[in-house]
Amino acid sequence: MAELKNDRFLRALLREPVDRTPVWMMRQAGRYLPEYRETRARAGDFMSLCKNPQLACEVTLQPLERYDLDAAILFSDILTIPDAMGLGLYFEAGEGPRFKKIVRSADDVEALPLPDVATDLDYVLAAVREIRSALAGRVPLIGFSGSPWTLATYMVEGGSSKDFRHIKEMMYARPEVMHRLLGKLADAVTLYLNEQILAGAQAVQIFDTWGGALSGPMYREFSLAYMQRIVNGLIREHDGRRVPAILFTKNGGQWLEAMADTGADALGLDWTTEIGDARARVGDRVALQGNMDPSVLYAPASRIRDEVARILESYGHGNGHVFNLGHGIHQFVDPEHAGIFVDAVHELSAPYHR
Amino acid sequence: MAELKNDRFLRALLREPVDRTPVWMMRQAGRYLPEYRETRARAGDFMSLCKNPQLACEVTLQPLERYDLDAAILFSDILTIPDAMGLGLYFEAGEGPRFKKIVRSADDVEALPLPDVATDLDYVLAAVREIRSALAGRVPLIGFSGSPWTLATYMVEGGSSKDFRHIKEMMYARPEVMHRLLGKLADAVTLYLNEQILAGAQAVQIFDTWGGALSGPMYREFSLAYMQRIVNGLIREHDGRRVPAILFTKNGGQWLEAMADTGADALGLDWTTEIGDARARVGDRVALQGNMDPSVLYAPASRIRDEVARILESYGHGNGHVFNLGHGIHQFVDPEHAGIFVDAVHELSAPYHR
Repeated sequence: MAELKNDRFLRALLREPVDRTPVWMMRQAGRYLPEYRETRARAGDFMSLCKNPQLACEVTLQPLERYDLDAAILFSDILTIPDAMGLGLYFEAGEGPRFKKIVRSADDVEALPLPDVATDLDYVLAAVREIRSALAGRVPLIGFSGSPWTLATYMVEGGSSKDFRHIKEMMYARPEVMHRLLGKLADAVTLYLNEQILAGAQAVQIFDTWGGALSGPMYREFSLAYMQRIVNGLIREHDGRRVPAILFTKNGGQWLEAMADTGADALGLDWTTEIGDARARVGDRVALQGNMDPSVLYAPASRIRDEVARILESYGHGNGHVFNLGHGIHQFVDPEHAGIFVDAVHELSAPYHR
Repeated sequence: MAELKNDRFLRALLREPVDRTPVWMMRQAGRYLPEYRETRARAGDFMSLCKNPQLACEVTLQPLERYDLDAAILFSDILTIPDAMGLGLYFEAGEGPRFKKIVRSADDVEALPLPDVATDLDYVLAAVREIRSALAGRVPLIGFSGSPWTLATYMVEGGSSKDFRHIKEMMYARPEVMHRLLGKLADAVTLYLNEQILAGAQAVQIFDTWGGALSGPMYREFSLAYMQRIVNGLIREHDGRRVPAILFTKNGGQWLEAMADTGADALGLDWTTEIGDARARVGDRVALQGNMDPSVLYAPASRIRDEVARILESYGHGNGHVFNLGHGIHQFVDPEHAGIFVDAVHELSAPYHR
């Protein structure tokens, strides 16, 4: 493997000194980029793009051609695991993800096979290898997975949900069935992330998009406990280097202390939490990644720079900050504005690292 | 007016002693009740039901016939004000609210008239008078409005939204236009709530459904500041009794201290915040209302009772707790389970008030 030329991102995740605050954007390879839309049109539908390692590699690298980003993230979907468990993932225009098979009963849960990552998810591992090779050490590659709770919401609801009617019925009325499903998913995610690491991912992020829909006690029991299990089972060092693990629970700002207790290296923050307050709460135990509202990118350059400055100041001096958006970049953002954002982070963060 | 027979709710909002923790449910008059569905079918569509004071009164009283609730809440919609401003509110099946006219430009905002509450919203005031008379002092009547920020989201987006693209573009890129719109709405909401109070509402709640989509600084500037303006302008005493004001920001658990600083009497909590922690943070400045996850009502009786017990214990002994769900009751809940919930609050709370 080529030597890593820019390791700001990995160093910041481990709270080591850097010259500038590293920055990447969730969903940085995405629909706001015309070149992405062009590749996607060639691929056909979204899953065909995910399942084609060459094209997945192509779109992963596109934002790096435009912007001075400090990390690449594997182009894939969070729902590849349930798809590999035989649920039949598909996307309907404007409707978000859907599954052909829905998991509701204890029997449904029992019947779910643990996916064989090396065969059922070989397209993901092939994409990781392809991207890693194409990056040639330019910046590190992030692997990722959905959290068990988040995967389960889609599997039990059959798609996106507003009120999580069916999974919450399962959680409150049949907790043993819920735990059995989450246990299987935690095992699958652990295997999946470890295979991504062995294939070349240099950091991993667990996306817990829907943990924030839970009360504190339910979050700890049904989401965090399973992320803990994954963190415990992850390969933490590979190729002589620490592989940092990042936990991101959207709307999880109230539970950062508990998240830091898992032993993850870093926590992702959405924009509803003040990053300076978050830092005071978790102290030096973890790095923090975030947390600009992606909608700031609709504003003119001066407003974007002001918001970057505000967040840098809120975090303050010292190590352990990876700049990011608090959620994925929106599809209607002007690509030029993303560049203004990335450059502002590098330019304005220098004084904080002297 | 008939004398109030059960004033637990009003007393708890003012942190005065009560014999039992009072309880009501957001959206207690709603689709989970067969008798509501029957009245709604007679009315035709949802807005025809809201605009008919006799039928609005009928559905307001329905849950009181079934359950031992400590308050009634006016049956209406949060979007009556923008409708009265001429935007043409309508509902499409399964789609949520929609407006015929959308507010996007500075000119759109300038052209918006301040509604004449006594004429444009006379149907709401007639419903308040009708309900108050029909209640005959049984329990107090709650009036309500959407918060300026929440109303603005629907007016600018044209309906419900996931990412608030247009209103956040306005907020970040054209803050002066955003402030002008919110200022008009704060004036309208103040007039509207005061007219509800004069017509007979004995407490008022401001529903800030979407304030939780903002960062802390943006929440304070674009949502809380305008709720503050309303609180400052509210009639606080009527008919010789204090009229408590309740602020409820969904996903606002991180900003409770700032909300308490407004001078509101009580804060509503969704279920993502631990009520005991919230109480420790706001001290004796405000009462707290909440905060069971409405999805607990999908569980069997014993689980519902356990969760009620847990929340009562978390709040602890002493005054200032109004029990409620953390959001509206879901339409697929078994009405019997709502009764189990209400009875459990009264039964299990007695020891906390000795």
